[in-house]
Amino acid sequence: MKLREPALKALKDLFGERLLLAEEDILPYGADASSLFFKPEVVVFPETKAEVSELLRLAESFNFPVVARGSGTSTTGSSLPVEGGMVVSFAKMNRILEIVPEERLARVEPGVLNGDLKNYLKKFGLFYPPDPASYAFSTIGGNVATGAGGPRGLKYGTTKDYVLSLEVALSGGKLLKTGPTTLKGVVPYNLTPLFVGSEGTLGLIVEIVLKLLPLPEKRKLYLVFSPVESKTLELITETLLKGLTPASAEFVDRTTLKVIKEKVEEKVRTDQILKTTESLLWVEFDGRIEEVKRDSGAFEIILEQKGLSFLSADKEEDIEALWEIRRGISPSLFKLGPKKIADDVVVPRRKMVEFLRYLRKLEEESGISIASFGHAGDGNFHVNLLFKEGEEERAKSIRENLLKKVLEFFGSISGEHGIGFSKRPYVVWELDPLQIELMKKLKALFDPKGLLNPHVKLP
Amino acid sequence: MKLREPALKALKDLFGERLLLAEEDILPYGADASSLFFKPEVVVFPETKAEVSELLRLAESFNFPVVARGSGTSTTGSSLPVEGGMVVSFAKMNRILEIVPEERLARVEPGVLNGDLKNYLKKFGLFYPPDPASYAFSTIGGNVATGAGGPRGLKYGTTKDYVLSLEVALSGGKLLKTGPTTLKGVVPYNLTPLFVGSEGTLGLIVEIVLKLLPLPEKRKLYLVFSPVESKTLELITETLLKGLTPASAEFVDRTTLKVIKEKVEEKVRTDQILKTTESLLWVEFDGRIEEVKRDSGAFEIILEQKGLSFLSADKEEDIEALWEIRRGISPSLFKLGPKKIADDVVVPRRKMVEFLRYLRKLEEESGISIASFGHAGDGNFHVNLLFKEGEEERAKSIRENLLKKVLEFFGSISGEHGIGFSKRPYVVWELDPLQIELMKKLKALFDPKGLLNPHVKLP
Ligand SMILES: Cc1cc2nc3c(=O)[nH]c(=O)nc-3n(C[C@H](O)[C@H](O)[C@H](O)COP(=O)(O)OP(=O)(O)OC[C@H]3O[C@@H](n4cnc5c(N)ncnc54)[C@H](O)[C@@H]3O)c2cc1C
Ligand SMILES: Cc1cc2nc3c(=O)[nH]c(=O)nc-3n(C[C@H](O)[C@H](O)[C@H](O)COP(=O)(O)OP(=O)(O)OC[C@H]3O[C@@H](n4cnc5c(N)ncnc54)[C@H](O)[C@@H]3O)c2cc1C
Repeated sequence: MKLREPALKALKDLFGERLLLAEEDILPYGADASSLFFKPEVVVFPETKAEVSELLRLAESFNFPVVARGSGTSTTGSSLPVEGGMVVSFAKMNRILEIVPEERLARVEPGVLNGDLKNYLKKFGLFYPPDPASYAFSTIGGNVATGAGGPRGLKYGTTKDYVLSLEVALSGGKLLKTGPTTLKGVVPYNLTPLFVGSEGTLGLIVEIVLKLLPLPEKRKLYLVFSPVESKTLELITETLLKGLTPASAEFVDRTTLKVIKEKVEEKVRTDQILKTTESLLWVEFDGRIEEVKRDSGAFEIILEQKGLSFLSADKEEDIEALWEIRRGISPSLFKLGPKKIADDVVVPRRKMVEFLRYLRKLEEESGISIASFGHAGDGNFHVNLLFKEGEEERAKSIRENLLKKVLEFFGSISGEHGIGFSKRPYVVWELDPLQIELMKKLKALFDPKGLLNPHVKLP
Repeated sequence: MKLREPALKALKDLFGERLLLAEEDILPYGADASSLFFKPEVVVFPETKAEVSELLRLAESFNFPVVARGSGTSTTGSSLPVEGGMVVSFAKMNRILEIVPEERLARVEPGVLNGDLKNYLKKFGLFYPPDPASYAFSTIGGNVATGAGGPRGLKYGTTKDYVLSLEVALSGGKLLKTGPTTLKGVVPYNLTPLFVGSEGTLGLIVEIVLKLLPLPEKRKLYLVFSPVESKTLELITETLLKGLTPASAEFVDRTTLKVIKEKVEEKVRTDQILKTTESLLWVEFDGRIEEVKRDSGAFEIILEQKGLSFLSADKEEDIEALWEIRRGISPSLFKLGPKKIADDVVVPRRKMVEFLRYLRKLEEESGISIASFGHAGDGNFHVNLLFKEGEEERAKSIRENLLKKVLEFFGSISGEHGIGFSKRPYVVWELDPLQIELMKKLKALFDPKGLLNPHVKLP
């Protein structure tokens, strides 16, 4: 036990009913969207920055670990208390504090759900682009701490591109503002991005100022069917080289297609197309009405030249219905096998086709299903190995091979989900000793006692 | 002298003719676009990363200071060797190494001129947006090290938004890659932005990977004339609230107008408008043809409703001719007084009008000219005090008052030029003790002996 009686007493005084201790209450906080489990000793629900400061002061003096938690949708165990101690849920710090339309800024607490913010902004005609598939139920704080991406990354970038400034409670309890909330400002070293993607290891984020954009006037979505698996990937490159920038380009490979075929069939009139389809690509254009019309026209010409069939939608509900198919992939993958290893690797765009071929070869040789899909517009693939009990070793070796391939291509082993606990062994494959040494020194600078999210992110 | 004979000998062996020692050769490297002067002891011109590494290794063992220099257009003395030692000019590391159209990326050496890169990219249909007024003669390395902005910041952001990854030679000579060169990647802590705006104090940047955009198809520029000084500022806010996002919105106040009136007169048919003009605003729209047409149409309606006169241009050469007036401001300011104190402060957009009124009051009370102009779309003003010999003390006190006002508005004392040597005393006004403590710890982590750009940036 990391938390002893005097610490618990101080915490109870501080949090009262907003502290959970009973086994059945705390168990849910030992799990996230990875398949890992680590039991917390106590879970607290701060409502103010001051309470977060105070709990970090207590953690320092009583020497117990502190793990931040948004909605626990992490796929890597990054929100789990690996060595016990305290989980800090930000569920009650979920206020949208301020929208400043003339600055196109929002100031929010970390527990606000991405989807709630998106909805709230509509009445201001404003738009927060980052859209992890989990947006309806993941928090802005969790999105910032992981550096979440999503389909719109192709045109709009990821969370890091929208965080203007943060307030962070540091180990020991001091509150740090990472920079001014004006649109520019180069006085301090720019610490904001250091916390974006830091997975709760450098400080607890207690307030976030986000940059916003005007809500696009118009959207148009294409669902493209290709009889050759790699042709959808080539389509992305060709589209970009023509100077078009879709908001999203989301890919589904042959193996993934199997698990969503039925849902797709509901949408296409005839199943003729699907019979010969090897991959899908969702391509969305958004922006001013005139721009979308022009760009989608140009895109249709490319589709025609390449002889690709497609569905298109331009009403909000039809667009969302087609996107639902994409968002439904993860939960359906179990159809291919009861066990899963998932990675979200990135390769340079020009290596995508070669990477896909490599995965196909691995799949054929091993008999283990390899389902790849996701944000191919950024070169970011969710690669899922699906297999049966007893095939763990083989799956692990396939995983390691594919991660090595990614690094041969100068790619990255994680585009957005982060390292958490589950990918820690592979960090040394991507980073060189100097990079790791600096990460460790930075961790020690911000969290000298190593109390924040221990065993996460760093190798 | 910081550089003694054994160190000089080793440097001569390394650089041969690419080392300057003679008084007349090194003098130019003691000055930049500030009015400061600090004489270097030696100036070297590395051609490779390995040479930069090696000189940093020598600096560590012989304990001499090293100051990076791009084109020396810094307005704050940030490229000057305050305590002597070595200036490292990146003038010979000026190769564009690679353009990857399908990834929309460029890999460059730090000495490439911003304007040269812009021109080179045209044939690929690509575009590097950051456009400091010095773009024709400042380097990408200098732009990165200062975090340079420019008129296009309103729509496109600043340098930090385009730096994907860096290679940095650290104090002692080790080479650090700050992250992968894929479009996404969250494995390491994100160190790239820490170096952007670090003014040469954390490492020497030896290679830069930049994100690019497709070249806008069409541009349209307005030069707006307002008989009420603050109305141009209100126009920005109104335009943004209508959901329009101009590429640029550049402001000129009543005092600045005096020095460019003649140049403006050449452009307007009748001087009737100018007689009653108190401020100017350049507003540019760019993007797809259809989008620019639509947005400029909507903008003209706003202009009409507000009863504002304007000129417009949509041919490249006419657009550039109007921009030349804006870019010509700095060199013309001396007409208002032989002595100058310049700041580039930022206030929240919604405080711009109040800030301008405050400056007018200061000007009236003091009799010292206060010329404000610049990137008002971002709330970023170049405030210039122009005065006569003997008025130094009064000007200094005005400057301090206006910086305090900026901070009362939760603004920043520098939006893009940085701190350098000249603004160091004011850093403690903006940053709190915790922010400063962390900056100092970071400096010590990356440059424990304090050899890189000493007396710059940190208070
Ligand atoms: C179905 C599904 C789809 C997904 N799709 C995507 C996707 O498209 N793109 C993507 O990027 N991810 C995706 N994810 C992963 C996950 O949703 C994201 O990583 C998300 O950002 C996590 O948010 P959360 O609120 O659930 O945070 P949690 O999972 O609770 O925490 C994640 C990390 O953030 C830290 N953290 C949380 N709050 C704070 C805080 N206030 N201060 C400091 N640290 C904090 C935690 O300690 C942990 O390290 C998906 C997950 C699921 C289950
Ligand atoms: C007429 C004029 C107009 C200007 N307009 C603008 C404007 O609109 N926006 C704006 O932001 N600035 C503007 N500036 C300021 C200046 O041009 C910018 O700060 C520019 O980015 C400096 O580039 P440089 O190559 O001249 O760098 P330098 O002045 O030589 O150096 C600037 C800083 O960068 C460091 N540095 C340079 N190269 C490296 C490297 N390879 N590694 C590490 N550190 C390095 C130097 O040590 C120094 O701290 C203007 C200046 C002038 C004279």
